[in-house]
Amino acid sequence: MKLQIFDSTLRDGAQGANISFSVDDKIKVIETLDKLGIDFIEAGNPFSNPAEMQFFQRIRGMKLQHANIVAFGSTRRKDIDPAEDSNLRSLLAAGTEYVAIFGKSHIRHVTDVLKATPEENLAMIESSVRFLTEHGKKVVFDAEHFFDGYKTDEAYAMKALESAYTAGAYCLCLCDTNGGIFPDEAYEITKKVTEKFPAAIVAIHCHNDGGLAVADSIAAVQAGAKQVQGTFLGFGERCGNANLSTVICNLQLKRGYECIPADKLKDVYESAAAIAETANTAVPPNQPYIGMNAFAHKAGMHADGVLKYSSSFEHIDPEAIGNKRKFLLSEISGKSAIYDKLKNYFPSLDKNGKEMGEIVSELKERALAGYQYEAAEASFVLLVEKILGKYKNSFDLISYKVINEQPAIEGKVASAIIKIRVNGVTKIAASDGEGPVHAMDLALRAALSEFYPEIARMALVDFKVRVLDSDKATAAKVRVLITSADSADSWTTVGVSEDIIEASWLALTDSIDYALMKRN
Amino acid sequence: MKLQIFDSTLRDGAQGANISFSVDDKIKVIETLDKLGIDFIEAGNPFSNPAEMQFFQRIRGMKLQHANIVAFGSTRRKDIDPAEDSNLRSLLAAGTEYVAIFGKSHIRHVTDVLKATPEENLAMIESSVRFLTEHGKKVVFDAEHFFDGYKTDEAYAMKALESAYTAGAYCLCLCDTNGGIFPDEAYEITKKVTEKFPAAIVAIHCHNDGGLAVADSIAAVQAGAKQVQGTFLGFGERCGNANLSTVICNLQLKRGYECIPADKLKDVYESAAAIAETANTAVPPNQPYIGMNAFAHKAGMHADGVLKYSSSFEHIDPEAIGNKRKFLLSEISGKSAIYDKLKNYFPSLDKNGKEMGEIVSELKERALAGYQYEAAEASFVLLVEKILGKYKNSFDLISYKVINEQPAIEGKVASAIIKIRVNGVTKIAASDGEGPVHAMDLALRAALSEFYPEIARMALVDFKVRVLDSDKATAAKVRVLITSADSADSWTTVGVSEDIIEASWLALTDSIDYALMKRN
Repeated sequence: MKLQIFDSTLRDGAQGANISFSVDDKIKVIETLDKLGIDFIEAGNPFSNPAEMQFFQRIRGMKLQHANIVAFGSTRRKDIDPAEDSNLRSLLAAGTEYVAIFGKSHIRHVTDVLKATPEENLAMIESSVRFLTEHGKKVVFDAEHFFDGYKTDEAYAMKALESAYTAGAYCLCLCDTNGGIFPDEAYEITKKVTEKFPAAIVAIHCHNDGGLAVADSIAAVQAGAKQVQGTFLGFGERCGNANLSTVICNLQLKRGYECIPADKLKDVYESAAAIAETANTAVPPNQPYIGMNAFAHKAGMHADGVLKYSSSFEHIDPEAIGNKRKFLLSEISGKSAIYDKLKNYFPSLDKNGKEMGEIVSELKERALAGYQYEAAEASFVLLVEKILGKYKNSFDLISYKVINEQPAIEGKVASAIIKIRVNGVTKIAASDGEGPVHAMDLALRAALSEFYPEIARMALVDFKVRVLDSDKATAAKVRVLITSADSADSWTTVGVSEDIIEASWLALTDSIDYALMKRN
Repeated sequence: MKLQIFDSTLRDGAQGANISFSVDDKIKVIETLDKLGIDFIEAGNPFSNPAEMQFFQRIRGMKLQHANIVAFGSTRRKDIDPAEDSNLRSLLAAGTEYVAIFGKSHIRHVTDVLKATPEENLAMIESSVRFLTEHGKKVVFDAEHFFDGYKTDEAYAMKALESAYTAGAYCLCLCDTNGGIFPDEAYEITKKVTEKFPAAIVAIHCHNDGGLAVADSIAAVQAGAKQVQGTFLGFGERCGNANLSTVICNLQLKRGYECIPADKLKDVYESAAAIAETANTAVPPNQPYIGMNAFAHKAGMHADGVLKYSSSFEHIDPEAIGNKRKFLLSEISGKSAIYDKLKNYFPSLDKNGKEMGEIVSELKERALAGYQYEAAEASFVLLVEKILGKYKNSFDLISYKVINEQPAIEGKVASAIIKIRVNGVTKIAASDGEGPVHAMDLALRAALSEFYPEIARMALVDFKVRVLDSDKATAAKVRVLITSADSADSWTTVGVSEDIIEASWLALTDSIDYALMKRN
């Protein structure tokens, strides 16, 4: 059965804290969603400011393969003719075939917030929808606070829908604006609506304040809703909106609904990554279906199970949506998982050989010392090279000295001197920096550059520090993770020490070693 | 109705990517959960490695107000007597009253992963549970893959439960190990189990691979489950486990279940923050109930609605769980919260005075610079003292120099020289240390000791580092939090800088300043 998907990333999603889209960002998001086969894209509120209106003018000529653009606004103001209402006029001017307008369906919001009589509000809904439909628009009516309104005054909430429906609304959207309902309520109340309006397209619009937005949306679909509204990555005010990537994967893979064209499912993972990138945010690694760790296995037992019987710890095949299975490396990983990870790097490695035993026990010992390789695969590969006797170091450290001082000297608080040897040639170099690790990084690069000019093409892109046993206070061990990248690739390395400078140094040199090894 | 809450943050939660707990971390988590009134705390697997077993020995003497500690393991191996099985023996040795063991209830996992006959597996369950109960343990039987198993072979899945139940299991736990079920399935299948075992305590254990773990847990409770397993912040492998903070708030606030003692509900927010801090991770700002933005309203329509009619955009009263309403762009609401915090320290402060305005704007400026005072109240109090002109510094820094070097000198990689002035007297002191901050801490104490001998009675007990804007790599800003304590009290201070040494220095000096101020 076909289910309509209505994405509001650019409207309700943009209300999320720290989410904002430039005009170019918005166009990218529209292209991504359209290509994926999303039915409706709510692109903004043309009345809210002139830039939004210009944006609607600009996208008028956009050729979309599948999606319909929707402009968002509200019912008219209380004492005004629809034709005079500047918000409704903006909706006409936006030039989209579809518009969505919200109106009140909760009696207390009518009386306490809007300060209108129950009848005035119904008239506002009716005349606004009629005005828009008479001007050729297909109208989605967003019944704000519908579920709470239904629980407070069932008859009035239904009358609000009735007013929109008789005025010609294309779709009646039931909003859980506060995000607090349970799936059983979503089911029962939606059922009442689909029974009362059997010919209408009923939509569900949930917020995630109770952590139930996806479940509520599914329950409403089971009760006959034919459209699901949400945002593709769950962006939205407070706790966000229903996450459409989860809704789509759940309903299409497990209940046979067609949310997007079947051949597009495999693009869900990439589309999510593209939208996150555009919004300058990262998909949470534990996000259902689309997270980096959604199919990552850590425990030895689990990983072993997956290899023996693929569905043993996977609810779906990750490749169905373009994601991948992953084995994390840790002290609780079994031999199978470690071997699986290593076989691409070391094809001749014997799973049951002596060397694998050494690798597993070295890994456990290092874990005790505070090393964690699950996020630092490059350091792990170097460690295995050392165990296998294949490691060739790119330089010898003779000494380093890193100095921090206050008062700062010409604005620099840190400086570093590093002396190394490469193929019998000794080189000393120095640098100042914003902090000790920055100074050390620059000095090491200066020392290495004449031997390995290619390191100029790699850059450090991420630096993380975690204090282990932090209650040993300033004498505690720290673990440093450094991520580096060149144009083709990125890799992460780890260092552990009671001295944060040494921990950083270890991660830093692994990072450079790995880059130079990759070359060969 | 009372519902048992079973927290597995330290066991299943520790399987999450980048989650790891030291022994001291674990003890902190146990204390937090116990204080909150959580019924069961699954603390780890004593068989997995010697450190885990030592941990169970160490916590044996811990005085808990409410919680029961649970040791986790598995049913015995295939061809062995329970008394010979080292895993079961570890469970006895762990010394807890409650143990949880997982066993297979999915026929294909028995044949394909375990490589056992259906009867062998039932015998493993039966004899393992019996062995443990005969040794006085209360046994939670975790029926792994129960829901998928039930769908594949209903009779066999039930037989697995039956084997555990007749052998005396205290609790039958239905696990959705792959995290893929829907709430309707959770309800129907749990219902079958509660009907078949009316006298048993049936538990539900869900994973979040479909984004439905909370909804599934609630559905199972509606079908008669009496215990919910999960992790307090949703930590766990892949997409995590059912988030107990959400489950508890939903069921207790909206359906009248007693998950934790009623007077503890207001501590949910703070407990979540404490556990996140211990795990060195942040609660996602959009997390239901406990997120920083869970009750944050962007200025405008919504905020206006909230002020007119408090439940208009809030599904619950945020203070019920210790969280707060927030207006993201409003200064007024910020002021109330800040005043609320300060009035204990500065009883004469005028809420509507000029000084409060200065405090609020300074706080905003500092927040932009990366300072966070939520966990560093001591630094905040010092900041306010400075604004109010009440601050008296305990020393002037003339200069410091911190040196890190390799090779180490007599085993010490770091040394520090610090020159200060107190009441016109100049003093210079030096120390070496395990790392730069350690050396600096010791040198500063050496310099101050003749002026303030009482600082010998305070100690640094916790040190944390977080990299802000980590994509600026080694030139990124870092935030350092230092917790200090004396016999009566503990306090936390913060420092922010692009230089980790300077950030540490700022937190360190605040810490000492605060201790000396407290005296007066």
